[in-house]
Amino acid sequence: MQSGVMKNINVDNHILQALREDITYEDVTTMAVMKEEKLGEVRLICKESGILAGLDVFKRTFELMGSIKMETKYKDGDAIVKGEQIARLEGDIRVLLSAERTALNYLQRMSGIATFTHELVEELKGTKTRLLDTRKTTPGMRIFEKYAVKVGGGTNHRFNLSDGVLIKDNHIGAAGGITQAIEACKAYAPFVRKIEVEVENLQMVEEALEAGADIIMLDNMDNNTMKEAVCMINGRAETECSGNVNKARLKEIAAIGVDYVSCGALTHSAPILDFSLKHLQAIEE
Amino acid sequence: MQSGVMKNINVDNHILQALREDITYEDVTTMAVMKEEKLGEVRLICKESGILAGLDVFKRTFELMGSIKMETKYKDGDAIVKGEQIARLEGDIRVLLSAERTALNYLQRMSGIATFTHELVEELKGTKTRLLDTRKTTPGMRIFEKYAVKVGGGTNHRFNLSDGVLIKDNHIGAAGGITQAIEACKAYAPFVRKIEVEVENLQMVEEALEAGADIIMLDNMDNNTMKEAVCMINGRAETECSGNVNKARLKEIAAIGVDYVSCGALTHSAPILDFSLKHLQAIEE
Amino acid sequence: MQSGVMKNINVDNHILQALREDITYEDVTTMAVMKEEKLGEVRLICKESGILAGLDVFKRTFELMGSIKMETKYKDGDAIVKGEQIARLEGDIRVLLSAERTALNYLQRMSGIATFTHELVEELKGTKTRLLDTRKTTPGMRIFEKYAVKVGGGTNHRFNLSDGVLIKDNHIGAAGGITQAIEACKAYAPFVRKIEVEVENLQMVEEALEAGADIIMLDNMDNNTMKEAVCMINGRAETECSGNVNKARLKEIAAIGVDYVSCGALTHSAPILDFSLKHLQAIEE
Amino acid sequence: MQSGVMKNINVDNHILQALREDITYEDVTTMAVMKEEKLGEVRLICKESGILAGLDVFKRTFELMGSIKMETKYKDGDAIVKGEQIARLEGDIRVLLSAERTALNYLQRMSGIATFTHELVEELKGTKTRLLDTRKTTPGMRIFEKYAVKVGGGTNHRFNLSDGVLIKDNHIGAAGGITQAIEACKAYAPFVRKIEVEVENLQMVEEALEAGADIIMLDNMDNNTMKEAVCMINGRAETECSGNVNKARLKEIAAIGVDYVSCGALTHSAPILDFSLKHLQAIEE
Amino acid sequence: MQSGVMKNINVDNHILQALREDITYEDVTTMAVMKEEKLGEVRLICKESGILAGLDVFKRTFELMGSIKMETKYKDGDAIVKGEQIARLEGDIRVLLSAERTALNYLQRMSGIATFTHELVEELKGTKTRLLDTRKTTPGMRIFEKYAVKVGGGTNHRFNLSDGVLIKDNHIGAAGGITQAIEACKAYAPFVRKIEVEVENLQMVEEALEAGADIIMLDNMDNNTMKEAVCMINGRAETECSGNVNKARLKEIAAIGVDYVSCGALTHSAPILDFSLKHLQAIEE
Amino acid sequence: MQSGVMKNINVDNHILQALREDITYEDVTTMAVMKEEKLGEVRLICKESGILAGLDVFKRTFELMGSIKMETKYKDGDAIVKGEQIARLEGDIRVLLSAERTALNYLQRMSGIATFTHELVEELKGTKTRLLDTRKTTPGMRIFEKYAVKVGGGTNHRFNLSDGVLIKDNHIGAAGGITQAIEACKAYAPFVRKIEVEVENLQMVEEALEAGADIIMLDNMDNNTMKEAVCMINGRAETECSGNVNKARLKEIAAIGVDYVSCGALTHSAPILDFSLKHLQAIEE
Repeated sequence: MQSGVMKNINVDNHILQALREDITYEDVTTMAVMKEEKLGEVRLICKESGILAGLDVFKRTFELMGSIKMETKYKDGDAIVKGEQIARLEGDIRVLLSAERTALNYLQRMSGIATFTHELVEELKGTKTRLLDTRKTTPGMRIFEKYAVKVGGGTNHRFNLSDGVLIKDNHIGAAGGITQAIEACKAYAPFVRKIEVEVENLQMVEEALEAGADIIMLDNMDNNTMKEAVCMINGRAETECSGNVNKARLKEIAAIGVDYVSCGALTHSAPILDFSLKHLQAIEE
Repeated sequence: MQSGVMKNINVDNHILQALREDITYEDVTTMAVMKEEKLGEVRLICKESGILAGLDVFKRTFELMGSIKMETKYKDGDAIVKGEQIARLEGDIRVLLSAERTALNYLQRMSGIATFTHELVEELKGTKTRLLDTRKTTPGMRIFEKYAVKVGGGTNHRFNLSDGVLIKDNHIGAAGGITQAIEACKAYAPFVRKIEVEVENLQMVEEALEAGADIIMLDNMDNNTMKEAVCMINGRAETECSGNVNKARLKEIAAIGVDYVSCGALTHSAPILDFSLKHLQAIEE
Repeated sequence: MQSGVMKNINVDNHILQALREDITYEDVTTMAVMKEEKLGEVRLICKESGILAGLDVFKRTFELMGSIKMETKYKDGDAIVKGEQIARLEGDIRVLLSAERTALNYLQRMSGIATFTHELVEELKGTKTRLLDTRKTTPGMRIFEKYAVKVGGGTNHRFNLSDGVLIKDNHIGAAGGITQAIEACKAYAPFVRKIEVEVENLQMVEEALEAGADIIMLDNMDNNTMKEAVCMINGRAETECSGNVNKARLKEIAAIGVDYVSCGALTHSAPILDFSLKHLQAIEE
Repeated sequence: MQSGVMKNINVDNHILQALREDITYEDVTTMAVMKEEKLGEVRLICKESGILAGLDVFKRTFELMGSIKMETKYKDGDAIVKGEQIARLEGDIRVLLSAERTALNYLQRMSGIATFTHELVEELKGTKTRLLDTRKTTPGMRIFEKYAVKVGGGTNHRFNLSDGVLIKDNHIGAAGGITQAIEACKAYAPFVRKIEVEVENLQMVEEALEAGADIIMLDNMDNNTMKEAVCMINGRAETECSGNVNKARLKEIAAIGVDYVSCGALTHSAPILDFSLKHLQAIEE
Repeated sequence: MQSGVMKNINVDNHILQALREDITYEDVTTMAVMKEEKLGEVRLICKESGILAGLDVFKRTFELMGSIKMETKYKDGDAIVKGEQIARLEGDIRVLLSAERTALNYLQRMSGIATFTHELVEELKGTKTRLLDTRKTTPGMRIFEKYAVKVGGGTNHRFNLSDGVLIKDNHIGAAGGITQAIEACKAYAPFVRKIEVEVENLQMVEEALEAGADIIMLDNMDNNTMKEAVCMINGRAETECSGNVNKARLKEIAAIGVDYVSCGALTHSAPILDFSLKHLQAIEE
Repeated sequence: MQSGVMKNINVDNHILQALREDITYEDVTTMAVMKEEKLGEVRLICKESGILAGLDVFKRTFELMGSIKMETKYKDGDAIVKGEQIARLEGDIRVLLSAERTALNYLQRMSGIATFTHELVEELKGTKTRLLDTRKTTPGMRIFEKYAVKVGGGTNHRFNLSDGVLIKDNHIGAAGGITQAIEACKAYAPFVRKIEVEVENLQMVEEALEAGADIIMLDNMDNNTMKEAVCMINGRAETECSGNVNKARLKEIAAIGVDYVSCGALTHSAPILDFSLKHLQAIEE
């Protein structure tokens, strides 16, 4: 996405579906007033300061509707300031008008997530603890939302149920214990998968370590227990803090020394970052 | 959705795509520890008070993966209280585990929107002004998000660019004036479309009225201008207030007497309403 | 379509499916005799006089199979005369041969509808009554057929069940009366929808008017009743005449003064307008 | 289709697309007035006499939207008389209302084609000549239209460019002659394909016979030439009459003794056969 | 495919699905180490001698991911020798790396089939007997595998159940005898289909001939019986030998004088032909 | 798949595409001779001894065409012996006939891979070395082929480019060295990914170890070098032997003590395991 390499494979179809969602058969208003192609330009202005994410997706949305050009000096990950002109687009005015809303819907949501992620990552500055996303994403939007987390400075957890092993209490129950669950996963999963186990107390930590867990998720632990767990683990597995994570708690979580802390709000509750298209005008050819 | 009538037509495909997003080929962890079908149950608990929306979509997500039953005394639109058990699901434990996250992702987002919408609608109580959504939805999720707005007590604006006519400044420019734009749309659009025009000042209101607009959108006007506009229109067209709308301003907007007020934040920035699945256990058969 | 703006979004997929319907894996005959690319040209000749519709779709069908050029001095809506050369195409002869039938299938049907629509519209000349299509279209072809109606001078009714409200007798029955049905729709439907009600007698007209219907469909009324209804309505709602509409009756319907008259035959029974590709020959390069 | 065997494979997707064409997100009118499921029944009445075709597709359209039952004593191919009740449907009234138009659109078009085909086949009664369809079908509808031809008593020509070899003048030109074209096709095409050649005069007939054509299409020949051709061929190849075929000419074509006569109008210009759903009413449970 | 004419219609979708199978969201390794586009080149080397098939599909796989150029002096059907450089590709190194495996997976399998087919066809040299493939192909890959058979010198049998008639014992049983089965198929199937019947003994041959079969498949017959059958048929129908066909038996089957011999192993058990991409390096621009 | 849990999500679409590949519009032969549904049964017989894989996919193929029942005492992974009856199917004879070939095409290929995998796994018996598959799968079939490897006793390597990190020489070159490449991947990839590096000599092994590789792939090393590498690594990373792996070499590779050995032939060159459907007969009801 950053690079454009994957757009034909994974992104175009999503954008085309979004465009079809917005245009069942045609943009009635635009077609009523503009019967002919007419070259024009428009400017993308950011209306709130934050971190830019999704500029390629924004551009691609227009391109999938018609031939346009976009000039910009920005790229994903840049800090942008309220009021700045982010880009200038040139093309058939009808394309500029008809794709505008869909293009902005991607850009605003992705930049919103990147901005919120960046805010939380700032809290962890100077510590070794890294911020993780979760699978609490908008249905159908995971590829865009996890990318935005990375742009904002976060780290991705597993992409989905197929590409990561995470043993939760119900799996432990079904397997008959932590040891059995870990063994079952090591035997069954593709060998390149790390094995992560969710634990709730120190005894489970102990058992997970002995069974050879690669990552131990400390779930909903209070700070003291978590500290003890981290000591006990002592680098023999990676550690992830999960549950009730919010901005206010991040510094104290990091102080405990966990390797990772995960936060669902990055993708499920980040407000958008506001942009608008302004100054649309015809270009004399 | 409310009724289940449309699920085969419009909803199933979306859910299946979301499930495939989360399961590229299988849920590795679950398949590793549970080789055989095993009947179980689990409870859906709400963790925040709010308005329930998306319960049918939640249930359907499990059904599309395997045969399950759901018991509930709730329906979309109900006010729910933190801690309540909303439903009980019964089925193959593997289905309950593998579809959990995707099902919750729908339910939480939809209930979040319904809850936030309801909060704003409460501000308008006792007035004739009704709250509208916009096209600022998550790409691909419009059908779910606009439904949630309605569940929360809001009213839907047009669904997309094809099923509503909304003449903005650029359309006016292209047509050569408000009158020409309205005439072009009346001639071109399917005859069942109302014609809405966005205006910025009183002179434009005047012209829109004379050209026979059905709806006049008062865009980014200050309260005084808006009041004057509403007086001038005097029921000859419907009125919509748009731009910089937030909870704090709603009461004063309603006091001005506009028919509708639209708010993009309903769908682009509502935080989720938190739910979880708890107490999964096997059922002896 | 006229403009090409929407082709990526809504038209290409339909054409590709039609091409796949005609070519499961390859055009066996063409591939057997022409192993190599060979530049050629062919001419599109109209074999009956009528109204041209679908020329862009015709051209696009070839383009989706390979690179071609088309020269023409015609555009959709033009009256064409039997025997005229409408266009000249140039490209790989195999593309010209393999896409020919599918391209003509679109063009002939669309031009047939435009021609038949135009014939009926001529009957209404000099009156204020406009000709409407219906939802009686060929499954999957609505976007093309409704466009052709417009090219032929007709006006589109609602595109589908989602973008227009039309209350029929069964809806009235379910709601418990015209008034209740109209109120239910006003409360439920997106606020940009006009409310249309189908009525069968003058009492229903009365009730529909009082309940605030935007459009009243006078269904299967005899001319006298219809005349009375139009008088009674007197501009307070738009009027549509529906049922048993054919060319012979159009002038008398218009004389009654309804705003609109709808006719299913436009899309369900128009014969095609005949075209053929002629004079295919190789071009020396 | 007749049997239901293929419905999952080839028919369901087409119907679902047609339903989505008619219902972008919901049937607004029906949902506004009927919030709850309500059992009802409705009757399918034929409004013109003809040949029934598409009853399974009609039924399937409702089934894909919700659970319904259909009772009928008719099956495809039956001659039906104006005014008869063809079937009775029972199910959620909302399903009956929302799927009605799409279901009828299939049934009317398919029955229209079967009726028109049957009319022409009657002209050939008592002769050995059989009536063929062509590839002049509505884009996307070929599977339904060719089936309707068969129901009406016609015979299918090739389904598409992949499953039949038909050498036309351009192919002959490209190959360098009839003999070379036939040889190229015999060498290249799957060996189960019959080789058909289109000829315009007796010399071409001669050459096609010598080169071993399986079928010779006599294109746009006058009756005398065609008679001579049939004599010359004398059973050594099958014969097909093509070009300017209409009902009036059929008897004289058959008298000439060709094996087959093909007619594009069967699928491109047959008017629909009219049906309607009547007497919808609730059923007390 | 050979010509590129059909790629948009039938091949691109297959390749895109294969690329999505290999890239759920991105090529993690490549994206981690190469953030920017960088021009490079790589060489396609064949590691085993054989017949080349699938070079256009190989190239297209890269093209669908990004803009690349390929230089080659080879084409499908060429005999290639171990160690030869078959092509040189130039483009963004990330595209070259990310599409490599999928592109090779097509090329190796198709060339493997062509090579194995060619080996068997060599056995038939100097005889009139031609080698046929079957429907025993890899699900989803038939278009590629049947093409590879043709490239290797084989002849295609029917493509699928819709485009060829092949009456097997169960069909004969259902119809009540060979004669009835052939008559039913002649009456029902598109008239361009040849009728093939599978027979097991001489009595069945007799009956098939009398009923007018176009092709008689001699199934699992010993050589003597097959010889007698061929004599009895004496050119009145085409003959196909089927069952227990392997390379060792081909010469003696051909000696018997059947027209065709079919072999499932061509597509279900041919080993791949090995290729690799070598010498990837950046190009200074 | 083993369990049926995932079938709606990931398997049904593949099977439906395969059925459509084999049935463009109908099974002409079967429909010609069997106009009515008729209950029948048929037996699945294995014609070669081996390991069964794909029985659920086989069954599902029939189910997607119509209602059938299957009785069996076997399950995937069972060793089966030539001549045994594996299952008995009951349903409409037309379904049994029309889905037969597609169902067998899955079963034969999957069982072929499981059988070949099992043969190689036997060579590793008594050692700690486990057999891995690769991404050298048939385009579109990976989900089925990797599953079959597991059924045969093999272990899956990464599923695709998105869910595993494997640093090859070109990645090392682009990153500027092994250390830089590993660091880049650790920083960029989802944190649950193990980092695997392909090395060609001992110096690279050294550097990979120091940079913290989780898995070291010893590519195309001779036995002595590989032995030295395994000693040097000494459990600090997992080891995978890759390149020129065949059955004959497996015992000596295992003796060296690598953890894994990967073999592309498992999926790219395994011959099928032969099955057939026999004894189809009608059942009196």
